Amino acid sequence: MSKLVPPHGGKGLVIRLLEGAERDAELKKAEGLKKIEISAQEKGDLIMIGIGGFSPLDGFMTKADWKSVCENFTLADGTFWPVPVMCSVTDEDAAAVNVGDEVALERDGEIFATLKVEEKFSLSDDEKKWESEMVYKGNGEDSEKFWDVALEDHPGVQMVMARGNEYLAGPVNVLSEGDYKTNPKYLGMYLRPAETRAIFEERGWSTVAAMQLRNPMHRSHEHLCKIALDVCDGVIIHSLIGNLKPGDIPAEVRLKCIDTLVDGYFVKEHVVQGGYPLDMRYAGPREGLLHATFRQNYGVNRMIIGRDHAGVGDFYTLFEAQEIFDKIPYQGEECPDPGKKLLCEPLKIDWTFYCFKCDGMASMRTCPHGKDDRVILSGTKLRKALSEGAEVPDHFGRDEVLVILRDYYENLTEKVEIKMQKAASGQEMK
Amino acid sequence: MSKLVPPHGGKGLVIRLLEGAERDAELKKAEGLKKIEISAQEKGDLIMIGIGGFSPLDGFMTKADWKSVCENFTLADGTFWPVPVMCSVTDEDAAAVNVGDEVALERDGEIFATLKVEEKFSLSDDEKKWESEMVYKGNGEDSEKFWDVALEDHPGVQMVMARGNEYLAGPVNVLSEGDYKTNPKYLGMYLRPAETRAIFEERGWSTVAAMQLRNPMHRSHEHLCKIALDVCDGVIIHSLIGNLKPGDIPAEVRLKCIDTLVDGYFVKEHVVQGGYPLDMRYAGPREGLLHATFRQNYGVNRMIIGRDHAGVGDFYTLFEAQEIFDKIPYQGEECPDPGKKLLCEPLKIDWTFYCFKCDGMASMRTCPHGKDDRVILSGTKLRKALSEGAEVPDHFGRDEVLVILRDYYENLTEKVEIKMQKAASGQEMK
Repeated sequence: MSKLVPPHGGKGLVIRLLEGAERDAELKKAEGLKKIEISAQEKGDLIMIGIGGFSPLDGFMTKADWKSVCENFTLADGTFWPVPVMCSVTDEDAAAVNVGDEVALERDGEIFATLKVEEKFSLSDDEKKWESEMVYKGNGEDSEKFWDVALEDHPGVQMVMARGNEYLAGPVNVLSEGDYKTNPKYLGMYLRPAETRAIFEERGWSTVAAMQLRNPMHRSHEHLCKIALDVCDGVIIHSLIGNLKPGDIPAEVRLKCIDTLVDGYFVKEHVVQGGYPLDMRYAGPREGLLHATFRQNYGVNRMIIGRDHAGVGDFYTLFEAQEIFDKIPYQGEECPDPGKKLLCEPLKIDWTFYCFKCDGMASMRTCPHGKDDRVILSGTKLRKALSEGAEVPDHFGRDEVLVILRDYYENLTEKVEIKMQKAASGQEMK
Repeated sequence: MSKLVPPHGGKGLVIRLLEGAERDAELKKAEGLKKIEISAQEKGDLIMIGIGGFSPLDGFMTKADWKSVCENFTLADGTFWPVPVMCSVTDEDAAAVNVGDEVALERDGEIFATLKVEEKFSLSDDEKKWESEMVYKGNGEDSEKFWDVALEDHPGVQMVMARGNEYLAGPVNVLSEGDYKTNPKYLGMYLRPAETRAIFEERGWSTVAAMQLRNPMHRSHEHLCKIALDVCDGVIIHSLIGNLKPGDIPAEVRLKCIDTLVDGYFVKEHVVQGGYPLDMRYAGPREGLLHATFRQNYGVNRMIIGRDHAGVGDFYTLFEAQEIFDKIPYQGEECPDPGKKLLCEPLKIDWTFYCFKCDGMASMRTCPHGKDDRVILSGTKLRKALSEGAEVPDHFGRDEVLVILRDYYENLTEKVEIKMQKAASGQEMK
């Protein structure tokens, strides 16, 4: 029997990805169906549903699920779930589709799934505003203040408000994983939940921690992983390889940094590297919960949650993504149906940094020294130094990783310069 | 309701220490009872029973308990317990005492307890040999090889075999805590389980780790505590302040080292310092289990178990004290009565050291580098360097602690030299 945490929802891994002859037949059928264009986020969600990463979801949410998720952190049936997973369509498409229809979901000319329409529903702008507040507003933040800046500054809210008002709900059959498995830029790191589970089991692990990454892996991330390594059987360094904000560092550079760091500074038998196909939702604390939820499906039972996990600008307090784990349903109480409860627990770790007096990495919980003794590691600060070609302070990062990042930023600058020269000389900018 | 782990045994803290008028009356009665001289170990056990540190024990074990503890790691009633806690008496005393009698237990002229004799029993030399093998022999060690060296080299076995063959069992009323609360050399660090629980509760802790110390606190101990601090609400640095082997460093020096280290390198609000009144049993892995068992009574639910925890010479493999936690009753299975199960779990941590390439403290689980990159921290090595006045390598310890230890060893050397001079000049040696 597996010693790993069971998938979320009590139904095992709910796999909706078709393969082989089944896929071929479904694809053939799909080509004859009405086509609906999906967003990048929906594409990522579909692949996750396909590979069981979003178990027990078997498709896109109904309005009852949407309402319950926003309000209670559960699906309508009471199963814990932290964020809406929905299929938005244009008014025209909605008008052309009836409950009971099957439609094909495509993006950039590729059919990603078929959807059996079980429900068609609308969300008014007010309902989308309500969703935005429920999902994206920081704990204790004033509603009025939130709206003063949310539309301008919160990419998650922007995505919700940019969505249409019409939605289709129902189970999907997923037909593609995009190029995650085949494109060499992902270094073979894209893994399905069944694959990570098989690796963990082969290694005999039962306590598995996950490190969430959407930025290059810095020394503070390394330290979080190492704290987890000392108290768990193993760690998966698990990178978002879907879409980020413009200006963020692309997956291939980030994966190369991780690979280099693992190569030089980790004991390989205790570490697994992986990538998952989602886009960032920029949902702050709720996104932290989503990270734990799908990690449970990957076989992880300890989700590392550090300082400002999945943070967005100044929308959340530094440890709000830790605190939210104490506020969700079924925590600290008997759950009548353990399948409904989130079983992947947070591994809450404080702000970490290098401290000269401690003579090593430390955290606010372990180090009593002052600001002047510490080299505070922040991705933002490092990004600034590297993109300006400035010196990076000692102990701030690992040299081998800084080389990769410096190289990336130098090329970026060169590209920008070339573009600017071309623009100046009248050539078209791409 | 307390968020702390309940005391072991399901009966709350079983307190047998009398105080105030009750104590005065019992002491008066005791002075008229037959006096029995107890060993240093029995004195420590009595104080632990008195203050609830050995809950649910209310006195010394019967032969059925002894047998079950040795064989099954449980009292006769099925409650987990790792080592015998017995009252040995001389043949003469045994002959003079009958079941139903009350006797007074004294040491160095002080009455420590009264014992209501519920059972009188004998252990043959063969039974004591059996106990020695069950309790002290390393896992997988050959019985013959064990006995080749045990009598010579194993202080735990020596104590068992030096015990008499007659025993008294029954509940006790404890009348004294010795000088632990009053002697300034303990720096006020002796705390009862009810006291540590009150401190933890006041601080709102629920996950509390304990660091066991019987040697000066070195940097590797500090690192273990800090790993625990990053993942628990708090840590108690809990020193044995009873008797050790001759040549070990006395409690007052060890407590001063800890105090200095906590002062300079810990965030005080997350740390409690404490002392407990037991002697070392030198029982290796079984002693590790005892450490967890009584820590549960102190309110601790994570017992830090590092490399060679409670090790004795070469009798045990380096991580045997971690592995034994997987072999005791009720682990990984439903226990029909949770009171019977050990609820304080091990926090297993690998061999730790300073690594130049990692640029800080690391463990075998986190550091992939080689021997030459590491400063391996061993108490034995440090003791040797300090007692010979040799240099201590960089990163090996904290300067403030090394000063205290150097000072201790220098005075020790001076004392030895004075003794030798006195001996040479014909003065009596003390």
